[in-house]
Amino acid sequence: MFSVQTYTERRNALKRAVGSGIILIMGNDEAPMNYHDNTFRYRQDSNFLYFFGISLAGLAAIIDVDSGEEIIFGNEFTMDDIIWVGPQPTLAEQARKVGVYRTESPNKLPERLKNASIVHFTPPYRYDNMLKMSEWLNLPTTQLKENASVVLIKAIVALRSIKTDEEIIEMEHAVNITREMHIAAMQQTKAGQKEYEMVSVIHAQALAGGGELAYPIIFSINGQTLHNHYHGNTMPDGRLVINDSGAENAMFYAGDITRTFPVSKKFTEKQKEIYNLVLKMETESIAALKPTIQYREIHLSANRIMLDGLKDLGFLNGNIDEMLAEGVQGLFMPHGLGHAIGLDVHDMEDLGEKYVGYREGLERSTQLGLKSLRMAKELEAGFVLTVEPGIYFIPELIDKWKSENKFAHFINYSKLDDYRDFGGIRIEDNCLITPTGSKTLGNPIPKTVEEVEALRS
Amino acid sequence: MFSVQTYTERRNALKRAVGSGIILIMGNDEAPMNYHDNTFRYRQDSNFLYFFGISLAGLAAIIDVDSGEEIIFGNEFTMDDIIWVGPQPTLAEQARKVGVYRTESPNKLPERLKNASIVHFTPPYRYDNMLKMSEWLNLPTTQLKENASVVLIKAIVALRSIKTDEEIIEMEHAVNITREMHIAAMQQTKAGQKEYEMVSVIHAQALAGGGELAYPIIFSINGQTLHNHYHGNTMPDGRLVINDSGAENAMFYAGDITRTFPVSKKFTEKQKEIYNLVLKMETESIAALKPTIQYREIHLSANRIMLDGLKDLGFLNGNIDEMLAEGVQGLFMPHGLGHAIGLDVHDMEDLGEKYVGYREGLERSTQLGLKSLRMAKELEAGFVLTVEPGIYFIPELIDKWKSENKFAHFINYSKLDDYRDFGGIRIEDNCLITPTGSKTLGNPIPKTVEEVEALRS
Repeated sequence: MFSVQTYTERRNALKRAVGSGIILIMGNDEAPMNYHDNTFRYRQDSNFLYFFGISLAGLAAIIDVDSGEEIIFGNEFTMDDIIWVGPQPTLAEQARKVGVYRTESPNKLPERLKNASIVHFTPPYRYDNMLKMSEWLNLPTTQLKENASVVLIKAIVALRSIKTDEEIIEMEHAVNITREMHIAAMQQTKAGQKEYEMVSVIHAQALAGGGELAYPIIFSINGQTLHNHYHGNTMPDGRLVINDSGAENAMFYAGDITRTFPVSKKFTEKQKEIYNLVLKMETESIAALKPTIQYREIHLSANRIMLDGLKDLGFLNGNIDEMLAEGVQGLFMPHGLGHAIGLDVHDMEDLGEKYVGYREGLERSTQLGLKSLRMAKELEAGFVLTVEPGIYFIPELIDKWKSENKFAHFINYSKLDDYRDFGGIRIEDNCLITPTGSKTLGNPIPKTVEEVEALRS
Repeated sequence: MFSVQTYTERRNALKRAVGSGIILIMGNDEAPMNYHDNTFRYRQDSNFLYFFGISLAGLAAIIDVDSGEEIIFGNEFTMDDIIWVGPQPTLAEQARKVGVYRTESPNKLPERLKNASIVHFTPPYRYDNMLKMSEWLNLPTTQLKENASVVLIKAIVALRSIKTDEEIIEMEHAVNITREMHIAAMQQTKAGQKEYEMVSVIHAQALAGGGELAYPIIFSINGQTLHNHYHGNTMPDGRLVINDSGAENAMFYAGDITRTFPVSKKFTEKQKEIYNLVLKMETESIAALKPTIQYREIHLSANRIMLDGLKDLGFLNGNIDEMLAEGVQGLFMPHGLGHAIGLDVHDMEDLGEKYVGYREGLERSTQLGLKSLRMAKELEAGFVLTVEPGIYFIPELIDKWKSENKFAHFINYSKLDDYRDFGGIRIEDNCLITPTGSKTLGNPIPKTVEEVEALRS
């Protein structure tokens, strides 16, 4: 946990930004899996963690901006709790460690909200919280999102977007646990194994580092499927395997790293050509990071490097500017270059990406690829974001475009026939924007062909 | 997946038992973790799995008992789905594999329900399903549980309680993956490690077996805390460690096994005394299993064995029958002897334990220990249940009872002072009730002192 000062200052900054009214920050409760009491692993809400630090189910907190009062609502432990879940510091004790000196029973919360002239809240994403808030705020569940407080959302985004030094220490730690996950996978993957056998190794490294998974592991010989959570394939010699996995450390900060490597000990020449092109996209994108530059521009530059390279390799013909404008790149990289990362792997996605990655006057494109770009706006020192270009050969998408004769003047579809079983390649790191450029977080994780092959031998 | 015949016969049996009306079986959707799109691992609802077999988010199904019609409601895949989650057999194709020949868009479901004279449904436990059902059935979310169909609940409990041969194959498989989890922990635990390092090994074995966790791992040097999910302790020489963990196999059947072993290579004499007493409780309880016997009686017999043994060891004085009647055993074993297990680790807990483990005329006790007994009624061939006695020394509970002078004529509190740092011991297996007795599922997992110590060397 950070210091009392840290949490107190965060809440004070929030009060100044919001100005007046009552701020409601909902904690997360346990989440039922296959019946009420068999729950998924507990994960506190990230806004609650940021302002109140306590990772405990069943809490909610208010900040009365006008009076300055701060209260955490939750139940104290009973003897039954001690028998089943062990002795715990009291809620009041835990609250004091984050500088909150008043705790109350949850049943006191509704009346506090009822008497408030204005209640600021963020858009709920847990359905149990929607039900509670609907009752407390006398709003239909379907109207909660549209009634969320924009001033609160903007204030939280402004605070959480700029990572402090003590947060960066946690994020480096998360990346370093993640590094162990990737190195173990590169060292231990063997042809003939099932993907899930290696998923077990990757997950174990996250736990052994005292953490958990920040998001479901993507570990697949079908890297062309962007969010592939199926792990039942046998890994054959000659195939590439993509590993997109990251740890959440004990302070709940996320790492999000992707590496792609051959199931065999060496890349084939064909694989190297595409791999080195993705690597160039990644390293040149990282080199371009600095305050004031628009991340959308870096995304488009990465697309340009890709189209140039694919043209050199004979996949494309014609003018690169025209291709970029018309969206040819969507066939090969149908996703965005990256996103903010912090307490959430897609940081603050619950608050709305239009506040996190966009701004007024910068709207999201509908073009394949750009439409999935989560971070587009001007970068600032203190931002942490992912840089994750990829090149994919998606047979179903190729077939669709080919059947529509789409961009047939640009795309050499016959050449693509030889890549139907290629899969996909993605390379991803997590970068802090510094006053003069950027810093890639964590100890280096092998990513050149030579570095990767050295671990595969 | 089981055969078309299996699923068809299950639904036919359900129709016969329910008699008339429309049966609604809700599938589970993805469950949000820290924002809508970052989800926990997907787990389908067990009733949906039992009758419709398809493990896919966003489905619901109806069985029209009067017309015999069966429909699965869900969306077909789009090109965006293929790009992000890969090519899939269509929903219609998957439905055919479980003998359902009609699929429809989810937005057709509400009108089907609106036109029905009676809709049978089970008590929802996922909050998103509560919101949907509240709207479809025009019932407040708070009234769904009390309006659930008792005839449907009883029909499902009757079917799911009796495991078929093909289900037992899956359950043995789940126990055998679980066995690997326990053997790995016994072999690899070393003094000085953090508990979470071994949790990583245990979880990895579940994944490496092509499964997942059936419930959160309990792996703790504080075994006296019954559901201890904290894994941050360093394991010291001389302490016991409890491992209560189980795999869910690829067909979603659960294993639930507990073993307790010394962090050092050998048990101390003091530990052996209590361990062998718990082992006696377990093996004698298993030996008593057979159709028609009440599981509540076996629970009480296990309590009697415990009290006898603790009296011999000098913890207790006086008449065992009186102690049993007054509830002295609650101090040492404040939980029940076991529960039904199947697709859920507490099988069908969503349907209500009063239907699964009790019956009319057999009500739950309020006595500490008995009040947590989930299975109490007469056993039948085909039931699968856990047998999991334990003995715990819970300092907070001992202090409370001592301060109240509770059962001071029975309990030798000064002797208990020497056991404040003992921890707890539990031993658990999964047993099928056969026509003549029982069968412990899976290959044997070391449990005598000698067997356990052999793995610790």
